[in-house]
Amino acid sequence: MTPRSDSLFMRALRREPVDRTPLWMMRQAGRYLPEYRATRSRAGDFLTLASTPELACEVTLQPIERYGFDAAILFSDILILPHVMGLGLRFTPGEGPWFERPLKSAADVEKLPMPDPEDDTGYVMDAVRLIRRSLPEDVPLIGFAGSPWTVATYMIENLGSKNHADARRFLLAEPEAGDTLMKHLADATIDYLVAQVKAGADALMIFDSWGGVLSTTMYKRFSLASQQRIVDGVKQACPDTPLILFGKDCGQHLEKLAGTGCTALGVDWTMDMSEARERVGQQVALQGNLDPAVLLTAPDVIAAETRRVLDSYGPSPGHIFNLGHGITPQVPPEHVSVLVETVRDYSAELRSRS
Amino acid sequence: MTPRSDSLFMRALRREPVDRTPLWMMRQAGRYLPEYRATRSRAGDFLTLASTPELACEVTLQPIERYGFDAAILFSDILILPHVMGLGLRFTPGEGPWFERPLKSAADVEKLPMPDPEDDTGYVMDAVRLIRRSLPEDVPLIGFAGSPWTVATYMIENLGSKNHADARRFLLAEPEAGDTLMKHLADATIDYLVAQVKAGADALMIFDSWGGVLSTTMYKRFSLASQQRIVDGVKQACPDTPLILFGKDCGQHLEKLAGTGCTALGVDWTMDMSEARERVGQQVALQGNLDPAVLLTAPDVIAAETRRVLDSYGPSPGHIFNLGHGITPQVPPEHVSVLVETVRDYSAELRSRS
Repeated sequence: MTPRSDSLFMRALRREPVDRTPLWMMRQAGRYLPEYRATRSRAGDFLTLASTPELACEVTLQPIERYGFDAAILFSDILILPHVMGLGLRFTPGEGPWFERPLKSAADVEKLPMPDPEDDTGYVMDAVRLIRRSLPEDVPLIGFAGSPWTVATYMIENLGSKNHADARRFLLAEPEAGDTLMKHLADATIDYLVAQVKAGADALMIFDSWGGVLSTTMYKRFSLASQQRIVDGVKQACPDTPLILFGKDCGQHLEKLAGTGCTALGVDWTMDMSEARERVGQQVALQGNLDPAVLLTAPDVIAAETRRVLDSYGPSPGHIFNLGHGITPQVPPEHVSVLVETVRDYSAELRSRS
Repeated sequence: MTPRSDSLFMRALRREPVDRTPLWMMRQAGRYLPEYRATRSRAGDFLTLASTPELACEVTLQPIERYGFDAAILFSDILILPHVMGLGLRFTPGEGPWFERPLKSAADVEKLPMPDPEDDTGYVMDAVRLIRRSLPEDVPLIGFAGSPWTVATYMIENLGSKNHADARRFLLAEPEAGDTLMKHLADATIDYLVAQVKAGADALMIFDSWGGVLSTTMYKRFSLASQQRIVDGVKQACPDTPLILFGKDCGQHLEKLAGTGCTALGVDWTMDMSEARERVGQQVALQGNLDPAVLLTAPDVIAAETRRVLDSYGPSPGHIFNLGHGITPQVPPEHVSVLVETVRDYSAELRSRS
């Protein structure tokens, strides 16, 4: 047992009692931090930052050093995997990521290569190894990937399609090609995540940022089924590694996600934690779910809203505090300190009261 | 009784048995139609089109003439009402609408005027009167407005705020100003909708396009409470006019919306109609919910997916067929014909079988 198997974060994932609620923040290594902006500016562009292990390690550690978060998350991007499949990832400032060679047909899907994690994404595995060596021994490291559906939305279309209508059109018109694409991405993701565990990741997370734009029928067939395939594959290879599924705007599918056999679910800010808990029962731990816009307000509002999230989950085991989505660049870093102090103090107080 | 009180659309709203499912499409007067683009180009810009009764009437009638939809909807915009409150509506091509003088503070909220429907939005009422005279006597006309929360998101911020984080921040930081703003907008909306009914609208609809970006707590306090105020106010003035509430991404709040006393709920494409029906029971009629991306595919897919929506609701009374959101500009008009024919034929067949 490493000391971090016994950390607050890992124990909360196992729904064991802890003295206070562990916390980290999605996109905690990000533009709201001046030290991140300095490293980013040295790197020149985002892709260089994400694909240079020393730089990725540096920004991964920055929020741990500043705030003492209870978990670190690998600095990378969900589009690295399709990028190494040859689609040509590009970032246009102010417009987000896009691919130079998007998938246009079922034939394009058939031609996709299966990347080798160490050969094709060696810089990611090197970053994981370097971060693991550089992090305090008791701080767990989270590895991650995008869900096949979410990654596919970027692979299928270029910028400017509302709610990923191009990707929905493709899967509606060519559902068999869609199944093939989902399976291919799921299998590549299993290899990619298992390699991250071998390189030193202590827990894993899948981001399904766009699961909420699908009809229930398409959600089950494409998003949920491919996430199920990943859960099964990763559990077989790494039975002891916790796996968190985060589906944005997927509140209506919470029970289905809990039924995959994953360890925990991320909950976005649109659903109360009390309702989420009631709906999934004792199947999984829950991670979330402060509205990121709260961090744009003032210290008293931040403290009150943070307490509200902690109250909503209550003192029972199995809560990891997080935002309901990534932190935004405009947040003043001192506002995050208010959040961190409130979670530490108030979650301990909640438990001592109960 | 006018002949249109007995139309399929009005009868379905009352959940009376009908021989086939009535249908119309959100944004049916829109850029996918060449005749719309011709009128739009004569008008020069969107605001001129929306504020010239003859032109607004012309585009409102175009989809009725082409497809024989079972209801017409006033051609206008949810931002006309805040525009006449003095905020200065502007449309930047490719970027959507924005206000020259957005609300920045609680003091700005206090200064908002209460528009008089005939004096300040007379061109809207003139358009309703002209459309009512020009439409076939048996085709009902739907009037509409935005929900206070959705309208407020545009009033509070300019372009580029993801998921309306600026508007969420404002209401989190200044909840009392938020309450004042919601009440002011609800009261203005009641006057505006009642005036539309007096001018000739047969049914009304509220669009809450951004209700889904709020936490449950904020949804109840701001979006739901202000919609409740509108339902109560409109029912008092026009007890016989059906009122439809459409909340995009508000699936988790369906029971709360049905409990407002409205006549019908619009359902977006992310939830099965069968689940929506089960959850709201016999309280309301339901309108929806084909994924608009289906219309970008091919005739056989369009027919199959249209039948799937009809099957999901089933042959019981109370269904108005619609898309789950507005039709997009890229849809070929002949694809809409496939949808229309499928709804007519298959919904009649469903009933004769049952």
